[in-house]
Amino acid sequence: MSVLASRLHGIVPPLSTPLTEEFEIDTKSLERLIAFQLEAGVHGIFALGSTGEVAFLSDKQRATVLDVVVRCVAGQVPVLAGTIDMTTARIIEHARAAEQAGVNGLVVTAPFYTRVGQAEISEHFRLVHAAVELPLLAYDIPVAVHSKIEPGTLLQLVKEQVVQGVKDSSGDEANFRGLLLARESYPDFLAFTGSELLVDAALMIGASGAVPGLGNVDPAGYVRLYEAARAGDWQAARQEQERLYRLFEIIKVGLGRMAIGSSAMGAFKTALQLRGIIATNVVGRPQLRLNAAETEQIRQALHTAQLL
Amino acid sequence: MSVLASRLHGIVPPLSTPLTEEFEIDTKSLERLIAFQLEAGVHGIFALGSTGEVAFLSDKQRATVLDVVVRCVAGQVPVLAGTIDMTTARIIEHARAAEQAGVNGLVVTAPFYTRVGQAEISEHFRLVHAAVELPLLAYDIPVAVHSKIEPGTLLQLVKEQVVQGVKDSSGDEANFRGLLLARESYPDFLAFTGSELLVDAALMIGASGAVPGLGNVDPAGYVRLYEAARAGDWQAARQEQERLYRLFEIIKVGLGRMAIGSSAMGAFKTALQLRGIIATNVVGRPQLRLNAAETEQIRQALHTAQLL
Amino acid sequence: MSVLASRLHGIVPPLSTPLTEEFEIDTKSLERLIAFQLEAGVHGIFALGSTGEVAFLSDKQRATVLDVVVRCVAGQVPVLAGTIDMTTARIIEHARAAEQAGVNGLVVTAPFYTRVGQAEISEHFRLVHAAVELPLLAYDIPVAVHSKIEPGTLLQLVKEQVVQGVKDSSGDEANFRGLLLARESYPDFLAFTGSELLVDAALMIGASGAVPGLGNVDPAGYVRLYEAARAGDWQAARQEQERLYRLFEIIKVGLGRMAIGSSAMGAFKTALQLRGIIATNVVGRPQLRLNAAETEQIRQALHTAQLL
Amino acid sequence: MSVLASRLHGIVPPLSTPLTEEFEIDTKSLERLIAFQLEAGVHGIFALGSTGEVAFLSDKQRATVLDVVVRCVAGQVPVLAGTIDMTTARIIEHARAAEQAGVNGLVVTAPFYTRVGQAEISEHFRLVHAAVELPLLAYDIPVAVHSKIEPGTLLQLVKEQVVQGVKDSSGDEANFRGLLLARESYPDFLAFTGSELLVDAALMIGASGAVPGLGNVDPAGYVRLYEAARAGDWQAARQEQERLYRLFEIIKVGLGRMAIGSSAMGAFKTALQLRGIIATNVVGRPQLRLNAAETEQIRQALHTAQLL
Repeated sequence: MSVLASRLHGIVPPLSTPLTEEFEIDTKSLERLIAFQLEAGVHGIFALGSTGEVAFLSDKQRATVLDVVVRCVAGQVPVLAGTIDMTTARIIEHARAAEQAGVNGLVVTAPFYTRVGQAEISEHFRLVHAAVELPLLAYDIPVAVHSKIEPGTLLQLVKEQVVQGVKDSSGDEANFRGLLLARESYPDFLAFTGSELLVDAALMIGASGAVPGLGNVDPAGYVRLYEAARAGDWQAARQEQERLYRLFEIIKVGLGRMAIGSSAMGAFKTALQLRGIIATNVVGRPQLRLNAAETEQIRQALHTAQLL
Repeated sequence: MSVLASRLHGIVPPLSTPLTEEFEIDTKSLERLIAFQLEAGVHGIFALGSTGEVAFLSDKQRATVLDVVVRCVAGQVPVLAGTIDMTTARIIEHARAAEQAGVNGLVVTAPFYTRVGQAEISEHFRLVHAAVELPLLAYDIPVAVHSKIEPGTLLQLVKEQVVQGVKDSSGDEANFRGLLLARESYPDFLAFTGSELLVDAALMIGASGAVPGLGNVDPAGYVRLYEAARAGDWQAARQEQERLYRLFEIIKVGLGRMAIGSSAMGAFKTALQLRGIIATNVVGRPQLRLNAAETEQIRQALHTAQLL
Repeated sequence: MSVLASRLHGIVPPLSTPLTEEFEIDTKSLERLIAFQLEAGVHGIFALGSTGEVAFLSDKQRATVLDVVVRCVAGQVPVLAGTIDMTTARIIEHARAAEQAGVNGLVVTAPFYTRVGQAEISEHFRLVHAAVELPLLAYDIPVAVHSKIEPGTLLQLVKEQVVQGVKDSSGDEANFRGLLLARESYPDFLAFTGSELLVDAALMIGASGAVPGLGNVDPAGYVRLYEAARAGDWQAARQEQERLYRLFEIIKVGLGRMAIGSSAMGAFKTALQLRGIIATNVVGRPQLRLNAAETEQIRQALHTAQLL
Repeated sequence: MSVLASRLHGIVPPLSTPLTEEFEIDTKSLERLIAFQLEAGVHGIFALGSTGEVAFLSDKQRATVLDVVVRCVAGQVPVLAGTIDMTTARIIEHARAAEQAGVNGLVVTAPFYTRVGQAEISEHFRLVHAAVELPLLAYDIPVAVHSKIEPGTLLQLVKEQVVQGVKDSSGDEANFRGLLLARESYPDFLAFTGSELLVDAALMIGASGAVPGLGNVDPAGYVRLYEAARAGDWQAARQEQERLYRLFEIIKVGLGRMAIGSSAMGAFKTALQLRGIIATNVVGRPQLRLNAAETEQIRQALHTAQLL
């Protein structure tokens, strides 16, 4: 069993990246956010994921984030880093930088912008694997990269020990279940759901854990959900999830004026600001920022969810 | 009228980027390729576009390409540079580097990986415009970025003089025609088609020119097509286009074994290698490389098109 | 509470439609299939759904199916009928015919072929509702009709008592959960999943029941799954579901030679033929028919699932 | 050469279907509309196409339309009939009815609602061809049926003389050109564009003619466009097309309040009503009807286009 497989499970929030008014990394806020997560009992930290607005950060800013995260987490839980970029050579640069920074594993998407098939996706993961020592998780997120890592592709990569697991943000729970069943053959295979809304169901069918963006806002809620599920108390898990489902509606507050990306990133950051964890609700450009009226709606939702 | 608008028209091939066996820029081949294009009479050069495999190049490699292109073109025709990346801050870095390198204009896509709407797309172009002095062309390529720059968005940006024109790789010729009609209000607006296959039709309905990937392989053919169209000889333009249409079938040679990205990039490079312009048919990773049997098919197609 | 809401729950298989070699309804096989389902303890029958190949049947054949189903079920369980067609007027004709035939409820999709929005979808359901006495279930199946009945649309129709429930074949379990949560306001609202593969999870989060195409082949398995879930034995439910998940792989046997429609319909019918329930594995034209080698693979899968 | 191939060319409007306030066929209006088209010099009539709202008509209404059309056209130009339905058996019923009604050719889409591949599409056309004597045109309209008749599939069916031609409403002009080039091998192959907006370009690259929905409103304009193109006067053709392009904006008048289907059908019918050809702007249900303010916008557009 790999070191990662033996340690990684449970709630692994895809850490938001607090920004200053000048669109730089707000390291003080980031430190508070990490502390907030660890105190809530999260089981790992995933830095530089989609929720971490990795797509909006310069290489230098990415490095800053990883430095702060590795320093603050200080080995208490595993740290994963997203190495999001269009193709292999660029990703390998990010992967090496993350390895240098001291993270414990990498989360790698299929290529994007270019049009690839399953053969190119396999080649991609093999090349990244060959370039670094760190264990890899495949990040299946068709809504962002517009191709699917097919289960046959993924399981072949697992068989070759190129990847140790998957973060499934496909929204295709039926397909995800097929991966879970494949653990009959590959018992160490890590399978995390990227869903915020079906974590109880995912755990019931065997998921290793969850990587919920909303976990930034309410890590304690997701940790309770996970512990209830682990104890087989599905009723408690479901109730917790239903509360979080309703809280997740905050991602729609900005819709109409802006697209779902701005609206969701803005909602998480506004909620964290309202909870006193981070200093601003600034989002990466060209995303739009939630305004005062929208902020007020977020405040109401936090009250309803008993988070304020 | 902007300097760009007064000079830019006609055939502007999206320059392939020759690579060595070690996946580095093959500068000697690149120099030969540029000379080959200029000798054929192309009216501009578009470096670091999708066909230039910009998505596969490191920032350092992008800089090398621009240095070679600016030096070799030496002002004979305008040089455009693609600044392809996920979001605004990263693109502004590329834009400044390209400005430093001495190009004459930038070609900028909508954001990708993240999900944006038209408001975010507008904000994006305004921010890039504010960050550099160079004129911008909007690069509408939904197949790569998975959002459309809607005509209302684009024409508003034209009105604000944020963008000077468009490279339309949408495949939506009816929409493209709507942009052409808008030149009643914005006569300097540059509108280039990214199609390889409908250049005669695009010119007939008023396009400023074309940015055909296949132009790498047969720039003289596209220049003849353009000159025939400019002379109103639509029969000659059509015949040239039909020959090039048939030649374009080479992009399918690798299909099945690989996806369309690998297959198309590989076809152009293999054809250029067979024509003696570049040294290898190496493509950026994780794309797959055309093999000997596939190369033989390309050779046959070049014979049929009277290019060998 | 409507009569339907008080009676409808549990496993409601979307009945396959056995055909003769001449592509006519095989009424003897259909009678055996209905008896097979009832003996297994299914809680309802859904005739003329997508799995019932309603799209392939003439109006006369649809009438024959409903006559046989109503006669054979004879009130033992509720009978639902699909009224699948492109737009309102045509659907109202099917709805009236089904009402005449004596079914207990209708399952109605959004319009298709034409491009509609949510306003037209709402109008559509209101018009069908006004034309018949029977309760309606909305059939949300974007893969077939290529539009989504948005939750806001659906819940407004529930509020107006235009529809009594939903059959959710969207594959979007997170959205489905939102509908389930809305039952706080609409406790009689029926919400069935169309999934074959996540029935345990759907029941755990509160679904009224399931409409699994694979239920044709193994109704007893799905009934066991449902009873285990109702008893709160999630471990047993999960095991049953995992066996059925593996069995469901039969729908891929024909893939490659044919598309998923032919392959899935053919797999269900071939399995029913092998189990001795129906006489042929003929599928509606232009679907392709599974051949001897493919039939042998189905046989193996039935053995593995302990159904032969 | 088939009889159809020798006669069919030019402008073949997809005839709108006038409705009464009670949603029945308004035969008087239909007669006037046909006379209006013939007087304008159209070269054929396509009844029961998408613009004819075939998806909204009962079988009886379809029969009424064909009876009126065949009687009024009276052999002056060829009459084509759309036989739109989900799958083969249902389409064969429509095809036989149309044959009985006396039309000259049938326009047949790929199956829809169900998921088919190219093998099933081929089988479908072969079965329809075997069932009737009339020549078939393949109707490639992915926006409605959500699958593409691939060029390889289509040309094989042409080779087998299963289909005589294509009505291309795919919006993929580059692919359409490939079909036109295939006429080197199949000179009788009829290839019509379904575009309203690129008819000059389509004719320039070799199309047999056009089937423009907007032709209902301004058949004389499209006939002039066609005659100019046939005379090689591309400048005149382009000017006519540009005027019609601007007129086509009327299809957007209802957008927002309704979807594009309602908006486009309503625009054509409202324009025909304003021009005094048909009695109402009623559209098939559940489409929404243009209101007085929207009608006023259509009136303005007709003035601008010099049609009022």
